[in-house]
Amino acid sequence: MSQPPLAIVILAAGKGTRMKSNLHKVLHPLAGKPMLMHLIDTARTLVPERTVIVVGAGREQVEAAVAAHGAAIAHQGEQLGTGHAVQQAEAVLTGFDGDVLILYGDVPLVEAATMRRMLDRLHAADAPAAVVLGFRPADAAAYGRVITAPGSDLVAKMVEFKDASPAERAETLCNSGLMAASSRDLFTLLSRVSNDNAAGEYYLPDIVMLAQRDGRQTAVIETAASEVAGVNSRVELAGVEAAWQAARRVRAMADGATLIAPETVWFAHDTVIGRDVVIEPDVFFGPGVQIADGATIRAFSHIEGAEIGAGVEVGPYARLRPGAVLEEGAKVGNFVEVKKARLGRGAKANHLTYLGDADVGAGANVGAGTITCNYDGFFKYQTVIGEGAFVGSNSALVAPVTIGNGAIVAAGSVVTRDVEAGALALVRPEQVAKPGWATRFREKMRARKAAKAGK
Amino acid sequence: MSQPPLAIVILAAGKGTRMKSNLHKVLHPLAGKPMLMHLIDTARTLVPERTVIVVGAGREQVEAAVAAHGAAIAHQGEQLGTGHAVQQAEAVLTGFDGDVLILYGDVPLVEAATMRRMLDRLHAADAPAAVVLGFRPADAAAYGRVITAPGSDLVAKMVEFKDASPAERAETLCNSGLMAASSRDLFTLLSRVSNDNAAGEYYLPDIVMLAQRDGRQTAVIETAASEVAGVNSRVELAGVEAAWQAARRVRAMADGATLIAPETVWFAHDTVIGRDVVIEPDVFFGPGVQIADGATIRAFSHIEGAEIGAGVEVGPYARLRPGAVLEEGAKVGNFVEVKKARLGRGAKANHLTYLGDADVGAGANVGAGTITCNYDGFFKYQTVIGEGAFVGSNSALVAPVTIGNGAIVAAGSVVTRDVEAGALALVRPEQVAKPGWATRFREKMRARKAAKAGK
Amino acid sequence: MSQPPLAIVILAAGKGTRMKSNLHKVLHPLAGKPMLMHLIDTARTLVPERTVIVVGAGREQVEAAVAAHGAAIAHQGEQLGTGHAVQQAEAVLTGFDGDVLILYGDVPLVEAATMRRMLDRLHAADAPAAVVLGFRPADAAAYGRVITAPGSDLVAKMVEFKDASPAERAETLCNSGLMAASSRDLFTLLSRVSNDNAAGEYYLPDIVMLAQRDGRQTAVIETAASEVAGVNSRVELAGVEAAWQAARRVRAMADGATLIAPETVWFAHDTVIGRDVVIEPDVFFGPGVQIADGATIRAFSHIEGAEIGAGVEVGPYARLRPGAVLEEGAKVGNFVEVKKARLGRGAKANHLTYLGDADVGAGANVGAGTITCNYDGFFKYQTVIGEGAFVGSNSALVAPVTIGNGAIVAAGSVVTRDVEAGALALVRPEQVAKPGWATRFREKMRARKAAKAGK
Repeated sequence: MSQPPLAIVILAAGKGTRMKSNLHKVLHPLAGKPMLMHLIDTARTLVPERTVIVVGAGREQVEAAVAAHGAAIAHQGEQLGTGHAVQQAEAVLTGFDGDVLILYGDVPLVEAATMRRMLDRLHAADAPAAVVLGFRPADAAAYGRVITAPGSDLVAKMVEFKDASPAERAETLCNSGLMAASSRDLFTLLSRVSNDNAAGEYYLPDIVMLAQRDGRQTAVIETAASEVAGVNSRVELAGVEAAWQAARRVRAMADGATLIAPETVWFAHDTVIGRDVVIEPDVFFGPGVQIADGATIRAFSHIEGAEIGAGVEVGPYARLRPGAVLEEGAKVGNFVEVKKARLGRGAKANHLTYLGDADVGAGANVGAGTITCNYDGFFKYQTVIGEGAFVGSNSALVAPVTIGNGAIVAAGSVVTRDVEAGALALVRPEQVAKPGWATRFREKMRARKAAKAGK
Repeated sequence: MSQPPLAIVILAAGKGTRMKSNLHKVLHPLAGKPMLMHLIDTARTLVPERTVIVVGAGREQVEAAVAAHGAAIAHQGEQLGTGHAVQQAEAVLTGFDGDVLILYGDVPLVEAATMRRMLDRLHAADAPAAVVLGFRPADAAAYGRVITAPGSDLVAKMVEFKDASPAERAETLCNSGLMAASSRDLFTLLSRVSNDNAAGEYYLPDIVMLAQRDGRQTAVIETAASEVAGVNSRVELAGVEAAWQAARRVRAMADGATLIAPETVWFAHDTVIGRDVVIEPDVFFGPGVQIADGATIRAFSHIEGAEIGAGVEVGPYARLRPGAVLEEGAKVGNFVEVKKARLGRGAKANHLTYLGDADVGAGANVGAGTITCNYDGFFKYQTVIGEGAFVGSNSALVAPVTIGNGAIVAAGSVVTRDVEAGALALVRPEQVAKPGWATRFREKMRARKAAKAGK
Repeated sequence: MSQPPLAIVILAAGKGTRMKSNLHKVLHPLAGKPMLMHLIDTARTLVPERTVIVVGAGREQVEAAVAAHGAAIAHQGEQLGTGHAVQQAEAVLTGFDGDVLILYGDVPLVEAATMRRMLDRLHAADAPAAVVLGFRPADAAAYGRVITAPGSDLVAKMVEFKDASPAERAETLCNSGLMAASSRDLFTLLSRVSNDNAAGEYYLPDIVMLAQRDGRQTAVIETAASEVAGVNSRVELAGVEAAWQAARRVRAMADGATLIAPETVWFAHDTVIGRDVVIEPDVFFGPGVQIADGATIRAFSHIEGAEIGAGVEVGPYARLRPGAVLEEGAKVGNFVEVKKARLGRGAKANHLTYLGDADVGAGANVGAGTITCNYDGFFKYQTVIGEGAFVGSNSALVAPVTIGNGAIVAAGSVVTRDVEAGALALVRPEQVAKPGWATRFREKMRARKAAKAGK
């Protein structure tokens, strides 16, 4: 049976006051990607025809963030409840006829399989009017309850905690707020929801009871509480981040990477890791990192936007920035920063080096303390180091400049002109010796120090 | 009702043998400040008239540490029990007539509100002779018990664990040792305490029973066990540090800072953090740090005694030492050390740099590998870099030296004389090329290597 | 009573498929040493006469690893069960007559005291045919059970979980697989074990029942579940590493070291730490490190194969590599790498330095940004810095080279020839000033930038 078209509606109109932030709550990053994008990307695997974000305050921030993602924005001017929020999506969905899946911008960990299960249940033979997503938290506390008949997945009643009887409060199945329904059912039912309650709000769950009056059933799907954890504060954000990281670390190890201290390795949403990769403690991966088989990432490395080839050794204290490409067997050692630079097979930059806007040939050796001077305050320029070249320690390569294949740059040189293949470049004055100078200097300074101390 | 004068007595005479340290136990730091100073600073919010530290061995260390804090030292020559210890404070408190609050140098987390509660209870209408501080640990184990009548906060009996009956051992309220009493009651009662017990010691809690014989009651105040955690070993010290840090991290997040991995950020006792500050994993704050709104502290940064302005970006791998002042929008990047140096608005030092005893003007750019040579082995000297100046990579600025506004220092220069505003300073020999030299060198070395291997 | 000779048999024939690794499972490191070596080294304290490793796939890797450790290899060509595995050791043990202790290469934490207890029990008056090692896990799950008579340590029955009755499954004492028996009993009984079971395997525990038929008893010794934790996946490896580290940290603190954040310090199997050593958060110790009393290891330090003297200060961000020797009171600061180099008493290298193949005299000061150029692409050479010498910042010392006692190297020098004691070495061209050049350059570049932007 082919599924009908799908629209994703993501509610993101909450003020997020408890975040105490100028950044919109749903744009706070989780594993290096805004929470909202996690949801959009997860939902994308269901190939939705439309995606609508319902935004209140901070609309511009959200609009800018999703601009490139083909999502439309609906605006909820006043905070009149979740039902009202979903209604704002109706105008944006004009002409759409299919399933609607309602998600929350601050509930970012929901998995595609769960979304799929909700839609599949919606299209089961008994054709429920809607499907809600339930969970059983360790402490059900003040969550709204989903009451079902024993042994049934059909909802007998949805009840807010504050309206619940003691017996209802004893129920452990809670409402996550997520819901699936056909667009026809959803918007028809929503138009009948009233705000005749203490808060004067239009509640989305009310459509369950309205459907029941029409003789239609609503089904509930259960999932793990951790999957529907919501983020209302930075403490909760840290909790969701910790849960995401813990799961990712287990996956990395199961896939064949050794993490000596898994709890001290931070992955980004898109980190790709090969087999027999060893990661020492305290490594941070920003977005855009790929690591091939057999690579070693030593402690205290900070890696973003980098490709790390097979058998490469990185760190400790390596900082790889976007555009770093380390080919097979290359080595980047301690206190080395690499940005928009390729190191060819077996090339090495082992100590205290900055390689920016550079291309280093296979087998080249970049000595300790080498700096590519890639910036003149206005423009950036390229440095090319040929295959098998040897750059002596403490050299400055003033770009644009090319060091030819197999060339040698003498230690301490400031290279401003190209060096031809096989040549030696030497930029160095004579060494001058002043015998006894140091001894006399020390005597003079000791005397001065004594004089100062005596004052 | 105005409170009577207050004296704080802090017992710190324990030998601390289990610490296995040459440093006095109460001077071991917690969040970068000695435990004893935590207590003194907390108690200071109650505006005590006198503060007395009772010290046994290691008196000199403690005396030196509190010298600047207006605390007096009482010496307990022999370890004859807590009652005896408090008695040693009597002579130092000659002429004092008011409340006495007894604290313990190795119980550093007690909060001012709790101290306040003890004193308030002491002055309640029923006028107890003393107030003790009780707690209910997860495992009451060998703690002395505080027995009260049901529903009452009046102490029926104080009993050491080893003397307690099974029924008394089943009680869960334990004695923290902290106590409040008027100086008159306290010292009068203490003079009647005997050492007629197995250990031959004078026990402070005995005054409760002595007061009872006089028809006076003692009240008990309860607090959380975590607040009265004691430190007798380095493992316990680490536990108290962990508890302190955990609470501090939650407060930072509640105040509007994002901590991606809160459990890997260490604060000092006096760290001040603004709103919308983002802190990556693995950041260590020593004492004296202030961070304004919107700053970003990237991973692996180590920061002490530094002022970080609004929107500043620091790290990864930034080391800010005392006297570092980064003004709004400044940037300090990887492997950069800043000590006693100001970076003006928008100034940048992005890579592999040492700025010591320096003043960097707004908008100046300090290139990779720049070193301020601030020390000649005897004295330190100042480097001034003007507004909008550009210091080329791998330069050494030999202080005292001034780079004028808008001046440029060519890469690799060793600058020993001032550079005037708008000028270029160039300290560089000619680049010499020796064609084919590298090729010949390699042939020679390969032959030598082969010869060595063949030996 | 003198103990009979001892043979250790370590089973290491499992395929380790779940590790997803090209490295043999038992060679995966724990605290920087292969799991197998932990067992060999622990067992060595019992002074075994023979050690046999039973290996299946990956024999070459294991053979190479144990070559230097005097262990013999037995090969199990087919995986026919633990009984069959032990039988493979028989041929290697030809001529041996004594006790056999059977260990598992993937159960690395077993302590010598436990092994000793097993052997002692084997030689108790009742002379059991074998001794098995039992444990009580939090979740007994699918482990084989050891059934004993109440109050007895004699085994009534060994039963695989899948064959166990409900009553037997309710028993909590589980079989670790470790066993001790005399070589005569062991191999005689093993020869009678059949593979008449569902898996068609020869099970080692079957010898218990065979002995029973002969009227011989088997005893069980209990130990903590954590001690017999097995490693079948990298997640389990991380768990065992975490347990090892946690125990090691407690031991370090008990011995008198302060660990501000113990959970972020990683020790190697052989780290030696003195008293009153302070270790800041995030420190990684590789193998071969010794730290004397009163040393301070600051955050983000990475230390392998180094000797750290009394009162030495290291880090933050210090990388000490094998052969680093820091004598009393020396100091290695941030972003400094030390390899095969000695720093004499009180010598300092505080910032951004690489010291490789060097000898630094007492009291010498190595300035920021100093690099020893120890490698010419073919050979490594030595740098000697004399006592009390002062190497100015950003200098390159091209080895082989000697800086004499008390000599001074001017900042930014490239030193290629020896400097005599007390002399000044200066390698520096004249500073050239081009007034107004920077101003004109900026105007030109701004115009170019504007032109580019306008295109």
